Amino acid sequence: MTTTSFDSSELYPTTRLAAVQEATARAGLGALLLTPGPDLRYVTGYEAMPLERLTCLVVPASGEPFLMVPRLELPAARHSPADRLGVEFVAWDETDDPYARVASRLGAVGRVGLADRMWAMQSIRFRDAMPGTEQVLAGGVLRELRMRKSPAEAAALAEAGAAIDEVHALVPGLLKAGRTEREVGKDIAEAIVAAGHARVDFVIVGSGPNGASPHHELSDRVIQAGEPVVVDIGGTMPSGYCSDSTRVYSVGEPPAEFVRYYEVLQRAQEAACAHVRPGVTCASVDAAAREVIEEAGYGDLFIHRTGHGIGLETHEEPYIVAGNDELMEPGFAFSVEPGIYLAGEHGARIEDILICGETAGERLNHSTRDLVVV
Amino acid sequence: MTTTSFDSSELYPTTRLAAVQEATARAGLGALLLTPGPDLRYVTGYEAMPLERLTCLVVPASGEPFLMVPRLELPAARHSPADRLGVEFVAWDETDDPYARVASRLGAVGRVGLADRMWAMQSIRFRDAMPGTEQVLAGGVLRELRMRKSPAEAAALAEAGAAIDEVHALVPGLLKAGRTEREVGKDIAEAIVAAGHARVDFVIVGSGPNGASPHHELSDRVIQAGEPVVVDIGGTMPSGYCSDSTRVYSVGEPPAEFVRYYEVLQRAQEAACAHVRPGVTCASVDAAAREVIEEAGYGDLFIHRTGHGIGLETHEEPYIVAGNDELMEPGFAFSVEPGIYLAGEHGARIEDILICGETAGERLNHSTRDLVVV
Repeated sequence: MTTTSFDSSELYPTTRLAAVQEATARAGLGALLLTPGPDLRYVTGYEAMPLERLTCLVVPASGEPFLMVPRLELPAARHSPADRLGVEFVAWDETDDPYARVASRLGAVGRVGLADRMWAMQSIRFRDAMPGTEQVLAGGVLRELRMRKSPAEAAALAEAGAAIDEVHALVPGLLKAGRTEREVGKDIAEAIVAAGHARVDFVIVGSGPNGASPHHELSDRVIQAGEPVVVDIGGTMPSGYCSDSTRVYSVGEPPAEFVRYYEVLQRAQEAACAHVRPGVTCASVDAAAREVIEEAGYGDLFIHRTGHGIGLETHEEPYIVAGNDELMEPGFAFSVEPGIYLAGEHGARIEDILICGETAGERLNHSTRDLVVV
Repeated sequence: MTTTSFDSSELYPTTRLAAVQEATARAGLGALLLTPGPDLRYVTGYEAMPLERLTCLVVPASGEPFLMVPRLELPAARHSPADRLGVEFVAWDETDDPYARVASRLGAVGRVGLADRMWAMQSIRFRDAMPGTEQVLAGGVLRELRMRKSPAEAAALAEAGAAIDEVHALVPGLLKAGRTEREVGKDIAEAIVAAGHARVDFVIVGSGPNGASPHHELSDRVIQAGEPVVVDIGGTMPSGYCSDSTRVYSVGEPPAEFVRYYEVLQRAQEAACAHVRPGVTCASVDAAAREVIEEAGYGDLFIHRTGHGIGLETHEEPYIVAGNDELMEPGFAFSVEPGIYLAGEHGARIEDILICGETAGERLNHSTRDLVVV
């Protein structure tokens, strides 16, 4: 079990709120409305349960931020890291209209930024309570901050990477011909928690033809001898930061065709990782992997983007995809996970999380990327 | 472990889509846009992972529904119960704009209903892709259907109730003076999965003063002898349906004041359950509990509504709260969970899930509601 613990005052510094407020003003927004989810946690450290009762941090471009909170959540909010921020907690009662109260305290604003994951049941109520106000995404303000991981965030991602590496180290002992994907997946889920994650986010065990479906999860299919198995797993650490790593195993000797393209895939993943440095576009990292696969004649079988940002969400900006001209900067954290999928037969994907450093990318996953024959 | 299994063809009948389409037309909406979450699952049975890539069932008031799906999710969607519906699956590629494609296939519509949990990152993109279209909540259409549980849904909720009852039966063996709430909570979480839930939704272990915070979760507080402990737990079954039940335990003999109000609480919960029948308002069920507590002089300490609907979500309509004049109907499923909270000292809440029958409410939880002294 990974034992490094996190210090919430470093990971969620109280100075962040002022930076967010400044960015809100700079973006020409009147306020951000942050309901439970990764945006709220990023700004406050508070992991509030997303529920139908409104909890919302209101960050005006100028003036005092406040947390609108259901009265019965008040003690939980007081026990959370949000309490360190010194903002007013405004408790609302079961028969109050919290949307109207936010609107009235905030006054007239031209544009508000909504937490990217705010539920429609809340965004539509805010729209109706603030009829003259245009809604845009808070992500437009927060992405610039959230994409650039601080040293504490980088350490939290490294801790998550080490935890999921521990799980991959156990996988060869769990994979056996005759077991179902679901049986193996259940053992992996337990190992994810045992390795220190607070929760399991996903467990993909794609055996044989199921390995050719990138987002296949688990089935009752019995794993056969001679089959490659794609294992893509991840969870969320107590810090709030996520892990995500894919490795490929083979139960006995794999088919010759598979061995041929696996070698190509390994070179493609290596090329994309080696390409990472400040100043290159996100699209060019995708292209670096894609070129190797296309040259080997497998281009049509690489059917998805090369990667996604990772942090408080498993998938966040920046996306490593054609057309994304965002320039890499130190602190960007993302997956590099090219795949080759031979429909109806088998597939492979190799995935590491990387963080962009001052001169190059650094991998946060270290288990072997060679095909592991068990 | 609860072993009753569910038949997705009964729980998620393929006839439901036509009923939803008819209700959409009747409500004067041009279409529903259903992204992953309980609304999509209700209509299709498909438990799609909520991700930044758009998956969306488009249900026009007239014409053919279709599922917009990322190409790499296509095999998973094909393996899901959504495949039985016979609707077209429209796959989009990594560099497509799926919002524009939905807008263009749908044509001009005056109003669309969004899944209640659709993320702002999606609702705002739909808004921009369909500039003349007013967005409202799909819940306005779906609530009438979702509130009235079918016999198969009632059976799924009963299965969930039996599973969480099994967990409560184990709690006395886990509670000991000297253990922390977190240690007990970890064991309870494992028991929730062992009892047949697909996932743990929440584990509240509120010892002593923490029992006075209704949504306290877990802390490192050490449980002391003579303390009441509120245990409120729930999870989601493989069927998609949720459990939620609260019981109160005491580690050794509890304080006399606690014993006095616990007796009141038990009568209040009983009175509210006995009040349930078709034709009474939801508010009157709340009032039935509240009256008993107020008469005993504890009215100020019952700081939340009496209950919430439950089904594919732990909290959904109907809410059992003052002001809700919705009339109970057979098939309504909801919690009855009055509480009394003495800040700084201790608290108590007793919660069962009920389903409204033809003449009375039926409890789906059967573990003892007496205070269990361990």
